[in-house]
Amino acid sequence: MRPSGRAPNEMRGIVLEPGFSKHAEGSCLARFGDTHVLCNATVEERVPPFLRNTGAGWVTAEYGMLPRSTHERTDREAARGRQSGRTLEIQRLIGRSLRAVVDMPTLGERQIRLDCDVIQADGGTRTAGITGAWVALRIAIDSLLERRIVARDPMAESVAAVSCGIVGGAPCLDLDYSEDSGADADANFVLTGSGGIVEIQGTAETEPFGRSDFDALLDLAQEGVAALTRHQMAAIGRG
Amino acid sequence: MRPSGRAPNEMRGIVLEPGFSKHAEGSCLARFGDTHVLCNATVEERVPPFLRNTGAGWVTAEYGMLPRSTHERTDREAARGRQSGRTLEIQRLIGRSLRAVVDMPTLGERQIRLDCDVIQADGGTRTAGITGAWVALRIAIDSLLERRIVARDPMAESVAAVSCGIVGGAPCLDLDYSEDSGADADANFVLTGSGGIVEIQGTAETEPFGRSDFDALLDLAQEGVAALTRHQMAAIGRG
Amino acid sequence: MRPSGRAPNEMRGIVLEPGFSKHAEGSCLARFGDTHVLCNATVEERVPPFLRNTGAGWVTAEYGMLPRSTHERTDREAARGRQSGRTLEIQRLIGRSLRAVVDMPTLGERQIRLDCDVIQADGGTRTAGITGAWVALRIAIDSLLERRIVARDPMAESVAAVSCGIVGGAPCLDLDYSEDSGADADANFVLTGSGGIVEIQGTAETEPFGRSDFDALLDLAQEGVAALTRHQMAAIGRG
Amino acid sequence: MRPSGRAPNEMRGIVLEPGFSKHAEGSCLARFGDTHVLCNATVEERVPPFLRNTGAGWVTAEYGMLPRSTHERTDREAARGRQSGRTLEIQRLIGRSLRAVVDMPTLGERQIRLDCDVIQADGGTRTAGITGAWVALRIAIDSLLERRIVARDPMAESVAAVSCGIVGGAPCLDLDYSEDSGADADANFVLTGSGGIVEIQGTAETEPFGRSDFDALLDLAQEGVAALTRHQMAAIGRG
Amino acid sequence: MRPSGRAPNEMRGIVLEPGFSKHAEGSCLARFGDTHVLCNATVEERVPPFLRNTGAGWVTAEYGMLPRSTHERTDREAARGRQSGRTLEIQRLIGRSLRAVVDMPTLGERQIRLDCDVIQADGGTRTAGITGAWVALRIAIDSLLERRIVARDPMAESVAAVSCGIVGGAPCLDLDYSEDSGADADANFVLTGSGGIVEIQGTAETEPFGRSDFDALLDLAQEGVAALTRHQMAAIGRG
Amino acid sequence: MRPSGRAPNEMRGIVLEPGFSKHAEGSCLARFGDTHVLCNATVEERVPPFLRNTGAGWVTAEYGMLPRSTHERTDREAARGRQSGRTLEIQRLIGRSLRAVVDMPTLGERQIRLDCDVIQADGGTRTAGITGAWVALRIAIDSLLERRIVARDPMAESVAAVSCGIVGGAPCLDLDYSEDSGADADANFVLTGSGGIVEIQGTAETEPFGRSDFDALLDLAQEGVAALTRHQMAAIGRG
Repeated sequence: MRPSGRAPNEMRGIVLEPGFSKHAEGSCLARFGDTHVLCNATVEERVPPFLRNTGAGWVTAEYGMLPRSTHERTDREAARGRQSGRTLEIQRLIGRSLRAVVDMPTLGERQIRLDCDVIQADGGTRTAGITGAWVALRIAIDSLLERRIVARDPMAESVAAVSCGIVGGAPCLDLDYSEDSGADADANFVLTGSGGIVEIQGTAETEPFGRSDFDALLDLAQEGVAALTRHQMAAIGRG
Repeated sequence: MRPSGRAPNEMRGIVLEPGFSKHAEGSCLARFGDTHVLCNATVEERVPPFLRNTGAGWVTAEYGMLPRSTHERTDREAARGRQSGRTLEIQRLIGRSLRAVVDMPTLGERQIRLDCDVIQADGGTRTAGITGAWVALRIAIDSLLERRIVARDPMAESVAAVSCGIVGGAPCLDLDYSEDSGADADANFVLTGSGGIVEIQGTAETEPFGRSDFDALLDLAQEGVAALTRHQMAAIGRG
Repeated sequence: MRPSGRAPNEMRGIVLEPGFSKHAEGSCLARFGDTHVLCNATVEERVPPFLRNTGAGWVTAEYGMLPRSTHERTDREAARGRQSGRTLEIQRLIGRSLRAVVDMPTLGERQIRLDCDVIQADGGTRTAGITGAWVALRIAIDSLLERRIVARDPMAESVAAVSCGIVGGAPCLDLDYSEDSGADADANFVLTGSGGIVEIQGTAETEPFGRSDFDALLDLAQEGVAALTRHQMAAIGRG
Repeated sequence: MRPSGRAPNEMRGIVLEPGFSKHAEGSCLARFGDTHVLCNATVEERVPPFLRNTGAGWVTAEYGMLPRSTHERTDREAARGRQSGRTLEIQRLIGRSLRAVVDMPTLGERQIRLDCDVIQADGGTRTAGITGAWVALRIAIDSLLERRIVARDPMAESVAAVSCGIVGGAPCLDLDYSEDSGADADANFVLTGSGGIVEIQGTAETEPFGRSDFDALLDLAQEGVAALTRHQMAAIGRG
Repeated sequence: MRPSGRAPNEMRGIVLEPGFSKHAEGSCLARFGDTHVLCNATVEERVPPFLRNTGAGWVTAEYGMLPRSTHERTDREAARGRQSGRTLEIQRLIGRSLRAVVDMPTLGERQIRLDCDVIQADGGTRTAGITGAWVALRIAIDSLLERRIVARDPMAESVAAVSCGIVGGAPCLDLDYSEDSGADADANFVLTGSGGIVEIQGTAETEPFGRSDFDALLDLAQEGVAALTRHQMAAIGRG
Repeated sequence: MRPSGRAPNEMRGIVLEPGFSKHAEGSCLARFGDTHVLCNATVEERVPPFLRNTGAGWVTAEYGMLPRSTHERTDREAARGRQSGRTLEIQRLIGRSLRAVVDMPTLGERQIRLDCDVIQADGGTRTAGITGAWVALRIAIDSLLERRIVARDPMAESVAAVSCGIVGGAPCLDLDYSEDSGADADANFVLTGSGGIVEIQGTAETEPFGRSDFDALLDLAQEGVAALTRHQMAAIGRG
């Protein structure tokens, strides 16, 4: 029995709300249960120095948590004057995950920046962030295509992410905070809509785990990402 | 005629949504038109060093903007490694405004911290922040009173804020971004529910203005804050 | 009776000493009683990025306190690695106040930077800074005019500042530190030589104050700035 | 054919040189071919705040690269004033990997800090770091056991790490820099001496990869870590 | 012939003005010609951590330059967020120089901090700083002795400093900025009132110099410090 | 009798190992007894802003210590976010010392950067750094000459450094850590191969010292640098 009462392969309620922000070129509020992450895309007509005059574009991400998105208040990173290692690690992961499905020369020499800000946290903020950021990115690129700023679609596939873990000895899908903090092992899986592996990060929390455990987590993740992909398609009106 | 089409003494649509956040001890999403500020209160059972062993408490505030809350994306302060002067100025103002209506010895040796985070910006974020933060603070204190952690109510009054400005030669209430950026002068007024002045900040934007202009702005502010006070009372169920 | 023994509308001894520094393009040591602020103007033949190729100039200010300018030593901001919110707020105020009386296209594409450094503090450092910085700026601009680097005078008016407050129930002009720290309310007024309002910042220190109190403070400020303007004119030899 | 001319399952020359540093409580220079990482253990008789008075200890790691350990010089992080996201991510990984095999209450209320500094880099610095850091940690703990500061051995198992990747379509073991920079996918595996999984990090570099590819990488990693474990045992004289 | 027209062994006009600051426990404005350094002493009844509960005290220094103390404006270190290497080097030198003549157990467990701030610079700011800081320190210690907070005089000797250099082939005493910037070699000498060597820092600017040149500089320095010692004694009323 | 048992004019075992690093344009591991400093030269085809378009080059240095190079672990400067005053002072010294023997117009508009990283510390790291850095610089310049990137040799002379001190009343050469920490005075001497003085830094540690003491230290330094010069020449194959 999971702390949340869910079946082992049952995700939380998923809501992907497109167009949440008025100013962004693409926007999606991603809710995985009580985890709410606002994802905003900004299109910039310039690229980082290492890409100048190459004709290729870039996609990058930034991540943050509102100080009281968490159960206990977390210090504001802007006030402390530096982003934590966890923050940097997560935003690097989100950026890599999105870049895996974008063809940079087709995007052209421009950058799309995804801001993923956690409004409320209850476990799985990075996976909700990736899932919502893809929707925001899709909307921003659709607008570039519509306005003929970009000629062909640089994004052939969708990408989404979910966490899985061994909780009380059993493999479970989409951990919430109370499950995550008591898990024996947990892993984040970033997969494409067609099932390709983009990123896997698995960690033993209490003691090393075996290969069959890992295989069970990957099975769950594939099931979960298939469901998330359907939510993404609905959100962009291609359901 | 105002850019927004509103009458000179007409505020934007005001919504104060209490209990927005799951984890905070007090919470309010304050909407002044398209300006949305999330205000969360955190109660901490310790005080800054200068108050230790005095028996008195403290109220303080922090302010931030999501990078894409603005029309053009603003750099993330956590990534730049320092808060801007504007940010520090605003959070100091919010803190002072709230402290003006709290009796610190009655609060007792604890700190309440108000996080005011701008989810979407369209002018007047600091005044929406003060107005919403008071609601979050009121809810947090009510909980302390209910649980008998604090014996008597340390907050006798409400406080709210509004901006006014000279737009196209005419004094106007509650400027939105397009009005604010073209104003000849603008001023922020922080007033109590009973009309007392807590803070006045007035600035000439194009050229110095006269005393009668300033008087007209203060008249409008008193009218506006009276309306905001009614919204605050409704939000906490004392309407 | 004021702690200083002065009449309510009596300023401290004012000395504006032009030409204090050997290297600066304009310089003034402003003394308001025991408050001594050294104001130096630097003319730079380049502007901030947002003004490049616009033909318009800029005026900006920086503010600092020597560590032992204060009664108790204040930590050196350079050693702490960041400027305090108070410092940033004050230097933004000084910059805005001076810009209000300068026509930027007439100044041309160059920047004048005003460094206001507090050598000794006894209350009112920001108002002494504005008053002295105007003198330094005037001298620097006069030199640009003399050398025909600037063709017409970009500064039509003077600007000066003074603080007022409610001390022991009575409105008083030009508070020193002991008065300021015990005031019920205090306000800083930045006015032009012809009486126009440039900036007003009023704050309740103990409890909210009424509109008539505020009016009394503004009356005193107008009287005080008129006197400061005469000192400024004498300092630049136009008395 | 690999760029290095090695067979797909062939590691580089591995040398683990214990006792490299004179001052450290445990020390090992780990060489994986031309990648040289100096790992030094420091025993501190105090723990981070969250563990004070719990009786439990802690193991943590820091990672750095000498500026000219790399082909092109890398800026010195101390001079830039902040550690990169990559650095923080790697040192968090090293710390987690070592903690997975240490029983903290048995270690007692003390901290062992592992400094992993890259003297020369040619791919795989994090895996060499983990492998060498375990040796340094083992030596430091042995000394605590000998001197009866710790009563029972808090470390039941060894841990080591290796990278694998898809290079030119083929799964390969222990990538060097030229292989790593051209790989289609790469993964770092942290495994115990008995084959348990501690951490898996796999990333698609060019396009998403399939589950069978991932399985092949894990097979190679198990083979590689078995060999590294033998080197570790020899280094501590338990071969 | 020196650029300044002075004889090779002729110092600039020296003025040591004690009691310059109202708030400091000891204060001296040191003028070496157009170089003006304000030196303020602060007595603190606590010591750095490494001295707690040892009964011994400490003397330390901080150094800064007003941005427009220099011919071209220098960026404000507080705004840049870090002190330059030059600043840290100079304040370390001033602190060491003063500590050389103070007996720390006799001072008792308290710290005296010397702030040396350059109001105007024309070469030799560090030597003026040391010379003036000793006067401020002497005044602060005299006050501790008078009030019987310290029982015996912890400072048996004076210390002062001067720069010398090879200018146009000739050894010269007390270089000003124009001489210093064109010198072939320069050296700073910190000597006690009785002629003991506290610190020597000599540097070849254009090409290496010989031992006889160095000896000539040291001869000049001894002559110069003897004169500075007389100024110091006059400043503290022991001439 | 010295703590090390060496004769007063006896240096530690000196080993200069050229070509230590695979990637650097010039490299030398300098060992003075148990002090080991890795010196790597990087040639960059650009210069600092103040030299652009002057045709002249630059030589600069950076210095760092591995955290556990010292007896007690030293905090990692990259983690603390700033380099200490000691670090900045040492790297400025190394840079100046090398520049004293390089003709910048002959080097041409390029920069050579010397990274001096302390692998193990036992006193005298800055003098070992200068001595080894010269070897690395010589190798880098030889390569520029061989490849005819630089036409004539910009470096006419060698430079090396050694520390001396008064230990137990006697002048001693090349202090190790235990001697250095108990010395009455110590000095670092940077001299050219032909005996010219480049830099002298002498400091009284316990009490001021006399001129004859200083002369004895300089005698020892000349003897020591002569020996170091022979080691340098052997290392570059010109012995």
